Amino acid sequence: MDRLKEINEAIEAYLQNGEPRKLYQAMQHLPLAGGKRLRPILAIISCEAVGGDGKKAIPFGVALELIHTFTLVHDDIMDRDEERRGIPSVHKKFGEATAILAGDALFAKAFEVASEVKENVGILVKNIATMAREICEGQQMDMSFEEMEEVSEESFLKMIEKKTAKMFEHAAYGGAIIGGGSDEETLALRSYGRNLGMAFQIWDDYIDIMGKKIGKPVGSDIREGKKTLMFIHAQKTPYKEKLAKLYGKKEATKEEINSVIEIFKEAGSLDYAKNKAFAFVNEAKKCLGKLKESNAKEELMKLADFAVKREK
Amino acid sequence: MDRLKEINEAIEAYLQNGEPRKLYQAMQHLPLAGGKRLRPILAIISCEAVGGDGKKAIPFGVALELIHTFTLVHDDIMDRDEERRGIPSVHKKFGEATAILAGDALFAKAFEVASEVKENVGILVKNIATMAREICEGQQMDMSFEEMEEVSEESFLKMIEKKTAKMFEHAAYGGAIIGGGSDEETLALRSYGRNLGMAFQIWDDYIDIMGKKIGKPVGSDIREGKKTLMFIHAQKTPYKEKLAKLYGKKEATKEEINSVIEIFKEAGSLDYAKNKAFAFVNEAKKCLGKLKESNAKEELMKLADFAVKREK
Repeated sequence: MDRLKEINEAIEAYLQNGEPRKLYQAMQHLPLAGGKRLRPILAIISCEAVGGDGKKAIPFGVALELIHTFTLVHDDIMDRDEERRGIPSVHKKFGEATAILAGDALFAKAFEVASEVKENVGILVKNIATMAREICEGQQMDMSFEEMEEVSEESFLKMIEKKTAKMFEHAAYGGAIIGGGSDEETLALRSYGRNLGMAFQIWDDYIDIMGKKIGKPVGSDIREGKKTLMFIHAQKTPYKEKLAKLYGKKEATKEEINSVIEIFKEAGSLDYAKNKAFAFVNEAKKCLGKLKESNAKEELMKLADFAVKREK
Repeated sequence: MDRLKEINEAIEAYLQNGEPRKLYQAMQHLPLAGGKRLRPILAIISCEAVGGDGKKAIPFGVALELIHTFTLVHDDIMDRDEERRGIPSVHKKFGEATAILAGDALFAKAFEVASEVKENVGILVKNIATMAREICEGQQMDMSFEEMEEVSEESFLKMIEKKTAKMFEHAAYGGAIIGGGSDEETLALRSYGRNLGMAFQIWDDYIDIMGKKIGKPVGSDIREGKKTLMFIHAQKTPYKEKLAKLYGKKEATKEEINSVIEIFKEAGSLDYAKNKAFAFVNEAKKCLGKLKESNAKEELMKLADFAVKREK
């Protein structure tokens, strides 16, 4: 099946028009603006990797995508971000009150969709509800980091585990449960998803510095003073003071941004983050050893590599 | 069983401390500040009214209470209300970002709790997820009313049905499903809950004008220009112009508030709203005719009367 097409069609069908019009337009704004759909894709392939029919995992995968989008809508309000995926954020376009509500309604819709799963609905709903609460914990940690001068690597990893990796973990785990995998298989895929998510987030911060992420200005993490793994690493080196003068400077020039990147290079922080991401990818691939050979397994291997190769 | 005590203990157990501390404090703020717990009580009595063990409905009832609280937390942000239940609203105390997150986390927690129901978990989760989305629709309608000069009674009733009555409807319906009621019984209780909720909301607006609602200044609906049933009725009488001068005046004096109340009296709007609430209560009681005699049924009768007798 053409997974992306089926996922997109399902999302469109679940988010069809309703009343009041403004609320539904705000709900549709971000989910219908594209996206890689990594979480539903991961759920579907994980279902297939244990011998299940991938189609059965579509509603569950869509539920995850809706939860993902709901968190983006609310995070953008909290972080005052005005752009997302190259278009205005929901609160920028529809106002803050409607954006809060649209996020809530997407969250509710996610559980409507998830409840359509035929078997194991109780455990699947419980898992993604706990996951959603942990994502909130992760976002709260992330916000608290903004007010802290130093953040430990341990806290940072805990934060991205909750905020990002949990959802990859449950995409793979839930997909495997729907596919009827054995305990060994479902737990292996759960661990795969978690490691994949960790790599994904570290790489995401890395390409914010190095690459050209679409829909976001280059160096925005540097201007915002985001506590990334690179920053946390560099702070433990003699470059700490030099970095402190430039990092988090809202009006930093292009030259200053480049200076920060140079510092990260010289301090070995870029390599450090890169290697950390690679290590998580290797760990993820190792988990796949528990699965029988299949096309789906091959795809999971490729997905792991993609997580640390992509440039957007 | 002492229902209120059991419900409160369950809520406390479900909302025990977690990390980050600030998020959990914000989550606990409103649910642990008391409240009538009408929704869980309604779920429990409805369960008993069809011959079920009321204890089995506690997690489901708590899930509803958490959803109710989550909507209050977010509504207070949207409406810029700084007080609730006589204490500062969550965003006033913890800041807006944490309040958005605390609401989200309460919503997530509600589904964690609801997923613990042993039987019919799929349908129960679907029902309350749809209900939550409809509550969002109701809140969006309510906000849009603020910008409208005239609102039809039909639109008003549709709004309170979504924003308030749906939750009473699903409390009674879900409780009856958990109690193993027949289709006739569960549908009768569903209709009972809906009518009870309609009466409850109309009466709530009525006592805002007439009574002394705890935790809210007297006449606040008048100062905010809230489109209540009384206002909608009075707007269709010759008092319309007199009312327009005073209704929605932020800095209205006590005398001006009293003038509005006088207008509502003379225009017959107070009686109109009161009678409408009574009519919904009668409709609710009629639904109970389908149930066998029991203590629980008696209590549902009393609950219906309470909805239009209470003064806070």
